[in-house]
Amino acid sequence: MESIHRHEPKVVAMVYGDTSTTMAQPLDGLGSVCREKGALLYVDATATLCGMRLEVDALELDAVSTGLQKCMSGPPGTSPVTIGERAEKAILRRKHIEGGIRPDDYVVAEGSIINSNYLDMGMLMDYWSSLRLNHHTESTSMLFAARECARVILEEGLEQGFARHMRASKALRTGLAAMGLELFGDQANRMVNVTGIVIPKLCGDGEKVRSEMLNDFGIEIGTSFGHLAGKIWRIGTMGYVCHKQNILRCLNALEAVLRRNGYNAPANSGVDAAHMVYEEE
Amino acid sequence: MESIHRHEPKVVAMVYGDTSTTMAQPLDGLGSVCREKGALLYVDATATLCGMRLEVDALELDAVSTGLQKCMSGPPGTSPVTIGERAEKAILRRKHIEGGIRPDDYVVAEGSIINSNYLDMGMLMDYWSSLRLNHHTESTSMLFAARECARVILEEGLEQGFARHMRASKALRTGLAAMGLELFGDQANRMVNVTGIVIPKLCGDGEKVRSEMLNDFGIEIGTSFGHLAGKIWRIGTMGYVCHKQNILRCLNALEAVLRRNGYNAPANSGVDAAHMVYEEE
Repeated sequence: MESIHRHEPKVVAMVYGDTSTTMAQPLDGLGSVCREKGALLYVDATATLCGMRLEVDALELDAVSTGLQKCMSGPPGTSPVTIGERAEKAILRRKHIEGGIRPDDYVVAEGSIINSNYLDMGMLMDYWSSLRLNHHTESTSMLFAARECARVILEEGLEQGFARHMRASKALRTGLAAMGLELFGDQANRMVNVTGIVIPKLCGDGEKVRSEMLNDFGIEIGTSFGHLAGKIWRIGTMGYVCHKQNILRCLNALEAVLRRNGYNAPANSGVDAAHMVYEEE
Repeated sequence: MESIHRHEPKVVAMVYGDTSTTMAQPLDGLGSVCREKGALLYVDATATLCGMRLEVDALELDAVSTGLQKCMSGPPGTSPVTIGERAEKAILRRKHIEGGIRPDDYVVAEGSIINSNYLDMGMLMDYWSSLRLNHHTESTSMLFAARECARVILEEGLEQGFARHMRASKALRTGLAAMGLELFGDQANRMVNVTGIVIPKLCGDGEKVRSEMLNDFGIEIGTSFGHLAGKIWRIGTMGYVCHKQNILRCLNALEAVLRRNGYNAPANSGVDAAHMVYEEE
């Protein structure tokens, strides 16, 4: 029994949209496997919140953490989370408060110590609950920012926002492909919010192109980290930057910069192809 | 040898100004004891930064953490820190990076695991150093806020700010004493930024007075936590609220509210005494 417990995971942690690889992790079916095995399923949806649909309940996700700074167009610094009943129970099992309200009484159950006061979810839940047990001084500016982000998102409408991200992403990808560029990775499982492009051999590690995009046109495109550094460029389509004018500007500038670096795409091919996507709708 | 290591502390952690008790911890001499014993001395100076002098180097403090939201009058949400060479070395001893820059290579030395990625000081130092090794998405709004707080503090002048806090605190205390109220705690070791008052027996747990101060005069005064809840009131003199008009308003309102609750201070005693403190200077 002891050895089984040691080897069966208690938590399965996934990143839904991974910006460094531009891939989106398929989550279908994972929830039921985790429930069968008694593990909690946690998903990081920071880079996709409001940019790609995530059916938290239908997918049986137990906990999801997010951020304001990607598709919500807000400032970084706070992390909205959602926690289901199973995760809540697991968190509450780790604490036991005698009498109710004094931090001195805070005893960790189940033999494991919660090392981080800062990220102690049980204490955070007591702070946010009707107990209002003081845990930290809340960052009020970030709370106001979160509320304003939510207000703006709802003003556009969630569905409309998803559609806007999808359309911009499709226009960008279609434009890039028309320029003869190779899109990076498995296209069936890609993020809507970031597009990876294999850097053409002519362009070396791609840094000169990135620098000319920034200095000549004021457009920042990314490279990646680790094994993908210097192998792919990454172009984001997130939040308020994600609209037709920016897609056309970016494709137009990229064609010009690539041509100066010896890569000749058919003239206007990117812009024309992106236009067609927008005209379809 | 093993047993000595288990029992000698590696870190001594102190709170300089503790708002819940209104006391300031004397730190003289602690630094040299800690150095002699090979322990690091860490001080939380959140509630006093820019309100009470703290000579970090002279006191041989190895690490100090702070916040913007007290005497700097900024928003809560970020924590400026200062770390000396001894603390830096201790932090760097806990990590060992092969090759330089990949998180995969991050190996914890000395047998102890750093449980919190979020508060991993070694990784934070690599992020802020010229390495610029990505660790998290920095909260840009909070950085701007920190810069603006520092700018405003320097505009007034550090010494002028300390003097303003000291004068306001002295005026408040002198006024309260003139009203016959008992100041809480050891007056030789009190914070400049918060004053504790023993709640007079006539006023029970003091909540009715707090509520009338807030509802009738728009002035919020605190009670405390734990053993001191309902035993003391706390009045802050921090940051931009810390000026003559607010001290006089507060004493004037408190006299009126106390009188309606059966505690009769000599008429105008608080305001008159506070005036004298301001006239002295």
